[in-house]
Amino acid sequence: MTAIGIIGAAGRMGQAIAAELSVQGITPAGGVDKGQGDLTALVGASDILIDFSSPAALAANLDTCVAANTPIVIGTTGLEAEHHALIDEAARRIPVLQTGNTSLGVNLLAALVEDAARRLGEDWDIEIVEMHHRHKVDAPSGTALLLGQAAARGRGVDLAAHTESGRHGITGARAKGAIGFAALRGGSVAGDHQVILATEGERIEIGHRAENRGIFARGAVKAALWLVGQPAGRYDMKSVLGL
Amino acid sequence: MTAIGIIGAAGRMGQAIAAELSVQGITPAGGVDKGQGDLTALVGASDILIDFSSPAALAANLDTCVAANTPIVIGTTGLEAEHHALIDEAARRIPVLQTGNTSLGVNLLAALVEDAARRLGEDWDIEIVEMHHRHKVDAPSGTALLLGQAAARGRGVDLAAHTESGRHGITGARAKGAIGFAALRGGSVAGDHQVILATEGERIEIGHRAENRGIFARGAVKAALWLVGQPAGRYDMKSVLGL
Amino acid sequence: MTAIGIIGAAGRMGQAIAAELSVQGITPAGGVDKGQGDLTALVGASDILIDFSSPAALAANLDTCVAANTPIVIGTTGLEAEHHALIDEAARRIPVLQTGNTSLGVNLLAALVEDAARRLGEDWDIEIVEMHHRHKVDAPSGTALLLGQAAARGRGVDLAAHTESGRHGITGARAKGAIGFAALRGGSVAGDHQVILATEGERIEIGHRAENRGIFARGAVKAALWLVGQPAGRYDMKSVLGL
Amino acid sequence: MTAIGIIGAAGRMGQAIAAELSVQGITPAGGVDKGQGDLTALVGASDILIDFSSPAALAANLDTCVAANTPIVIGTTGLEAEHHALIDEAARRIPVLQTGNTSLGVNLLAALVEDAARRLGEDWDIEIVEMHHRHKVDAPSGTALLLGQAAARGRGVDLAAHTESGRHGITGARAKGAIGFAALRGGSVAGDHQVILATEGERIEIGHRAENRGIFARGAVKAALWLVGQPAGRYDMKSVLGL
Repeated sequence: MTAIGIIGAAGRMGQAIAAELSVQGITPAGGVDKGQGDLTALVGASDILIDFSSPAALAANLDTCVAANTPIVIGTTGLEAEHHALIDEAARRIPVLQTGNTSLGVNLLAALVEDAARRLGEDWDIEIVEMHHRHKVDAPSGTALLLGQAAARGRGVDLAAHTESGRHGITGARAKGAIGFAALRGGSVAGDHQVILATEGERIEIGHRAENRGIFARGAVKAALWLVGQPAGRYDMKSVLGL
Repeated sequence: MTAIGIIGAAGRMGQAIAAELSVQGITPAGGVDKGQGDLTALVGASDILIDFSSPAALAANLDTCVAANTPIVIGTTGLEAEHHALIDEAARRIPVLQTGNTSLGVNLLAALVEDAARRLGEDWDIEIVEMHHRHKVDAPSGTALLLGQAAARGRGVDLAAHTESGRHGITGARAKGAIGFAALRGGSVAGDHQVILATEGERIEIGHRAENRGIFARGAVKAALWLVGQPAGRYDMKSVLGL
Repeated sequence: MTAIGIIGAAGRMGQAIAAELSVQGITPAGGVDKGQGDLTALVGASDILIDFSSPAALAANLDTCVAANTPIVIGTTGLEAEHHALIDEAARRIPVLQTGNTSLGVNLLAALVEDAARRLGEDWDIEIVEMHHRHKVDAPSGTALLLGQAAARGRGVDLAAHTESGRHGITGARAKGAIGFAALRGGSVAGDHQVILATEGERIEIGHRAENRGIFARGAVKAALWLVGQPAGRYDMKSVLGL
Repeated sequence: MTAIGIIGAAGRMGQAIAAELSVQGITPAGGVDKGQGDLTALVGASDILIDFSSPAALAANLDTCVAANTPIVIGTTGLEAEHHALIDEAARRIPVLQTGNTSLGVNLLAALVEDAARRLGEDWDIEIVEMHHRHKVDAPSGTALLLGQAAARGRGVDLAAHTESGRHGITGARAKGAIGFAALRGGSVAGDHQVILATEGERIEIGHRAENRGIFARGAVKAALWLVGQPAGRYDMKSVLGL
């Protein structure tokens, strides 16, 4: 049986993954959280790690996995360019799967968004709005960014150069070609996302609703079981899900 | 300049098409509505007809066009199997384009729905809900049926054999593989459609909102200008829009 | 401590109520389901019953409670006029609370819908659409009917006489003053409801989303604890929630 | 017949108002826009002014109306505290009606939002999201602010002190009691608004969709006809609509 270790074990997703492993009859290799627990020992005892901790912990997590030659699934959100560089570097040595969302629904949605953005011209404005529970600390969500990347890829543009976010005050008219983001927070919402493509007289709306974190936990475990045995490299959910 | 005649000229769509022709600087070849006006004369004076009238008028409209060897765009909704048989027959003699919706957005939506239905298994239940103005006399809308056809095509099944509609009373559990339809009516809504794919724990929602009938009129005129000069045969909007 | 018995204990809501009682540290008085278990003994051992079973079981449930002079909360849906007559009759002898939905959100929503229907004239068409999981056997949902009753009350009309449901085929234009219902089914949706009021050029949408059955279980237990000690009579959630 | 003058006559709303006056058979007293036209002459020729221009023009517009003792309806958005102070000052001399939205639907919505915010405690997080066409230069919309004011009034708090807007980056958890705003821009959307109240396990969504600017123009003309003959003072749409 594959030994799966959890980094960020005390967080919302960490707990959901432990529950999912229990449902599947998999005994977790153990977990660490915010310095509680011995990361090196956990990595040593695991065939693969699932990391839903924080951007600040990423460098140490990757270093420990590389040192032990152990693959890692990264679901942590709020990553900046510097974190993605660390992931790229680690992926030259070990298998690393990083994703903003592990569910089948969201990853299919991303494929639809990329397709729509490719077929519709820049005369269709793209807006991405998401809602999450009141405890979420980063905005926009990792999933919203994943959808934004899909839209940018479909259009053949760079997302960072076209992001329009946090509108407030006298903003002026919308920039042609912009990809807009808005983040709603409240209650216990597990994660709702909607991509809107709007032009003169009509709108397309493509969205996803997660009822609970169970679907993300299932996807993370599926990704972990898939990643074990792959060669070193950087992966995302598309390969896992066959999209 | 192409001479475009309008059948159903006094209806909501007929008026919108006349307005669109005016915007494009095209003088309509004329119009008929519910026996008001001379259909044979109109067809004789037209390079192409656009028909947004009623199913009851379809046979006569097709006969007149076939007799004059004039192509026709059919946007009439509420068509039954018998009407589609008439269209197939006429399409052996003249170019006929029949569509439940002439807008770019809806036709792209249909492509996305087909793709999603193909990639997701039957464990994702498909529901289609639409809203139109209070005057609409048929349900579900022609566009909802167009989207249902796309879903059925994606799944490789026959729509009629899987339609679930008008739930009321003790219905029992949802049939596996069903494609559900629901129709809302009210106010002056030009046309909203949503396709929901729902499974355990998550939902995908793919929708379209039309702000007014102008987008349908533009699409109908675009289809007419495209259809002139095509060989005899049956067409839909995908060829017009290059989808 | 109040002894709470569950009728329909093996169903989705029965299980959710047992879980909620456990969270609140209340030991259930026991449960029965579809002839499994001794109803008379359960009622004898309970200070109050919560019934989420089926319309067919209602008469026996009420008779047993009346005989033992024990109050009952009824959350069963799919009730017809005959069932409401039975409830009225029982309520002359014991306290009975019947409701289509036990959550604070839905009951507040009903108050907003009644208010909106009262203030807006019949030129605003009312449509009610709901979505529930694929296993639900009745349509529209008890909650949709509760919202429809609120709309009818606001307008000062009888709901049954104005219901428009299951549109399919050539329906003709919408009837003036109608209150429309549509039911979507799919996946594991706990319960989404939306009331749309639409007139020329604008729409108001008032809706509720339940993430899971926990909110309904919490409300049912709250209702049970409130109902114990009330005089005989028929009640709904408004009194419990102070709306 | 009442002589109605339009300030901001060349803008989207100015044109819609002129069209509405035409429909109602009212000849406008004339219009000015961005220094084009003689404001003093227009005010002199008008029984009442409707102003959909810009915040920068407000001081001069109010001064001219006060000097001529002519009432004014103000629909301009993007107003700051300084503009509201100018309005209060003018309203001591002439009748002034200022509103973020002139439609019946939005103003009823505001009443529902205030009611819901009053009845639900701070454990229900409030978020307001709006979408407008790509040309709109201010965010959030005047209507979103009107709805936010209603929510704050219902809670008995000051809106400015509780506004949370433009989330981006590491935001930390949502502040207790915050009222969040998000602005989407795209296509030709006339104006969609939604107020979400979310707590553990459930959400209430209260929204409005405008199909076109006609409803705002009708409301503005209705407000103008109502305001003529009122005593000096500051008014909003509630009095006009009898809410």
